[in-house]
Amino acid sequence: MKVTVHGRSRPFRTVTFDAAKNSVQLIEQRLLPHEFKIVATRDFRATARAIADMVVRGAGAIGATAAFGLAQGARAFRGHDLKQFSAHVEVVFQTLAAARPTAVDPVNAMNDVRRNLARGQTVAEQQSLALAAAEDFANEDARHCAEIGRHGARLIRNGMNLLTHCNAGWLAFVDVGSATAPLYAAQAQGKRFHVFCDETRPRSQGATLTAWELAQQKIPHHLIADNAAGHLMQRGEIDLVIVGSDRVLGRTGEVANKIGTYTKAVLAARHKIPFYVAIPLSTIDWNLKRGFDIPIEERQEHEVLGAWGVISNPQSAIGNPKRNRRVYVRVANPGSPARNPGFDVTPAELITGLITPAGIFPPQALWQQRHKLGFTP
Amino acid sequence: MKVTVHGRSRPFRTVTFDAAKNSVQLIEQRLLPHEFKIVATRDFRATARAIADMVVRGAGAIGATAAFGLAQGARAFRGHDLKQFSAHVEVVFQTLAAARPTAVDPVNAMNDVRRNLARGQTVAEQQSLALAAAEDFANEDARHCAEIGRHGARLIRNGMNLLTHCNAGWLAFVDVGSATAPLYAAQAQGKRFHVFCDETRPRSQGATLTAWELAQQKIPHHLIADNAAGHLMQRGEIDLVIVGSDRVLGRTGEVANKIGTYTKAVLAARHKIPFYVAIPLSTIDWNLKRGFDIPIEERQEHEVLGAWGVISNPQSAIGNPKRNRRVYVRVANPGSPARNPGFDVTPAELITGLITPAGIFPPQALWQQRHKLGFTP
Repeated sequence: MKVTVHGRSRPFRTVTFDAAKNSVQLIEQRLLPHEFKIVATRDFRATARAIADMVVRGAGAIGATAAFGLAQGARAFRGHDLKQFSAHVEVVFQTLAAARPTAVDPVNAMNDVRRNLARGQTVAEQQSLALAAAEDFANEDARHCAEIGRHGARLIRNGMNLLTHCNAGWLAFVDVGSATAPLYAAQAQGKRFHVFCDETRPRSQGATLTAWELAQQKIPHHLIADNAAGHLMQRGEIDLVIVGSDRVLGRTGEVANKIGTYTKAVLAARHKIPFYVAIPLSTIDWNLKRGFDIPIEERQEHEVLGAWGVISNPQSAIGNPKRNRRVYVRVANPGSPARNPGFDVTPAELITGLITPAGIFPPQALWQQRHKLGFTP
Repeated sequence: MKVTVHGRSRPFRTVTFDAAKNSVQLIEQRLLPHEFKIVATRDFRATARAIADMVVRGAGAIGATAAFGLAQGARAFRGHDLKQFSAHVEVVFQTLAAARPTAVDPVNAMNDVRRNLARGQTVAEQQSLALAAAEDFANEDARHCAEIGRHGARLIRNGMNLLTHCNAGWLAFVDVGSATAPLYAAQAQGKRFHVFCDETRPRSQGATLTAWELAQQKIPHHLIADNAAGHLMQRGEIDLVIVGSDRVLGRTGEVANKIGTYTKAVLAARHKIPFYVAIPLSTIDWNLKRGFDIPIEERQEHEVLGAWGVISNPQSAIGNPKRNRRVYVRVANPGSPARNPGFDVTPAELITGLITPAGIFPPQALWQQRHKLGFTP
């Protein structure tokens, strides 16, 4: 997607690879929305650190980063001994896999690269195949998101007000995003619409990342407190909800996503507002039998007890650009504890449809369509 | 209620009067929860400023502050001329009324004081009656809240998990509070229970004021993001919801309260969790015909775009006590606009009951009981 840097609008991807420098290029997401910066990792260990330290986050984006990291590590090998090379690749793989131990995307992406690389007869061939496979992985992620956009754009009509929660935007993938893909596609078709962005406490990804994305693409939007969506729905100010997901159960159609998604789905159902979940097919979990068994991460208390931001004048539109360093402020009563579930599970009955690269389905139809959608028993 | 100051637990009211010094004593609520301080206003103009500057907030609390401010102004008059005295009282009245021009409680409270004062034959008598009436007003506010507590405590059983939203606590009244009154009464009866406190973005009154109140009273509690209540209800972790209200329509039972209340009521109804609204009878509006006509204040954007807090280490339980000064941090993307409706309206069908000093009623029963409840046509 395009980002305006020094007054010029230029296309960027979240993750790219510089073959000449053997370096993974990442948008430094921890600085957003206050600063836009590309960082380049020198070697696979630095790439692993970037994943671990959340320079890059989001399923598709960390998958592609790990794939490029594996190619980067493989290409750094000097020598011709295939056995030594394989042992080295294994170290690279394990280092990158350990960066986000609970995430499934980096491992899936690297397995893909490793499978392709094995077809080479020499170290040089395997190195070359590794990079080609990583590039293919990244391009396919972007293509899948573009397909989500193509299908989802049909839901958006001129004059609509949409609501989205958290960030399932292009920053979470290689490009385009999942929940944002229909917006970008509809915009490209010349449709005019407006987006309400849930702040998405406690980590405020809606206020920071989604609002930044929409502003860069010049899509009209307003931020709202997570408390406000119900009121806006009641007053007829929201026509359509599109969110992303961390895991969709293929057997039940239940959707795990950022905490607060379930609440928005309950409100949308009450007001008969269509509620869609946009996902690549890799998000579907064909094994788990019920949403109640999805482990809900209990995150650190300090996220609820305070906020990260740039010290600024409340009345001025922007912070002081000379001190754009984020600080943590404690908002809550000192000593009061907090509960911080990071995700919730929305039942299929509250979801109008899943927007996938293969089309739009009611969530209950997933299991019937499982063979078409890539289920491997 | 009791507050621990320098390690000693002492009883306080939100608003009191020092007759010897002719001074209104207020808890400086803008410093909470990071600092507890009582401020004394020298004269009625300083009292008006304290109301305007939100040193004191909440319907009952600003009502009592204005009543005491009127007595304070009346008692500062030197002379015996009743006509001059009356003119002076009028200036005091108008000055205090202008401090929060949209609030109805200060004017109602001062009308009460002025009616009583008029019974005096001399300036000295009228001054004395003014103070007695203000004291009566404050005591009655506290007594009404205690009655809410007595009725509401019946709803609380051992082992329950409650949810409350925003701050309808003793800081918003003279003492005890409305939504908190049943908690304090149940605690006094030896019941054991636990409270989830909604953070209540964008102004975070739950995280700051309610959490502080509960911590001072040693009521077990956890803060949660506003996004988390739906998930906790789904998992059976919430048994009862009690909130306050800014206005209840006597004709329809609709409840206007802090933004996000409606969302919690919708969630509670879905999960068949009792949802109660605790109010003094002065909160009932017998005139307005439908909730849709309640004006919803659109507040300043900066509340949604950022947060107020004390710079601190995210991992430490308390801020640095040497720099407890609150700062504003901008969280959101610079340049993204926000919508900020301050209140929402919950329909009667979602409300299990109103907890009032006169007992607990379904909201639909208000109109039938209107004569008993103080309706004057």
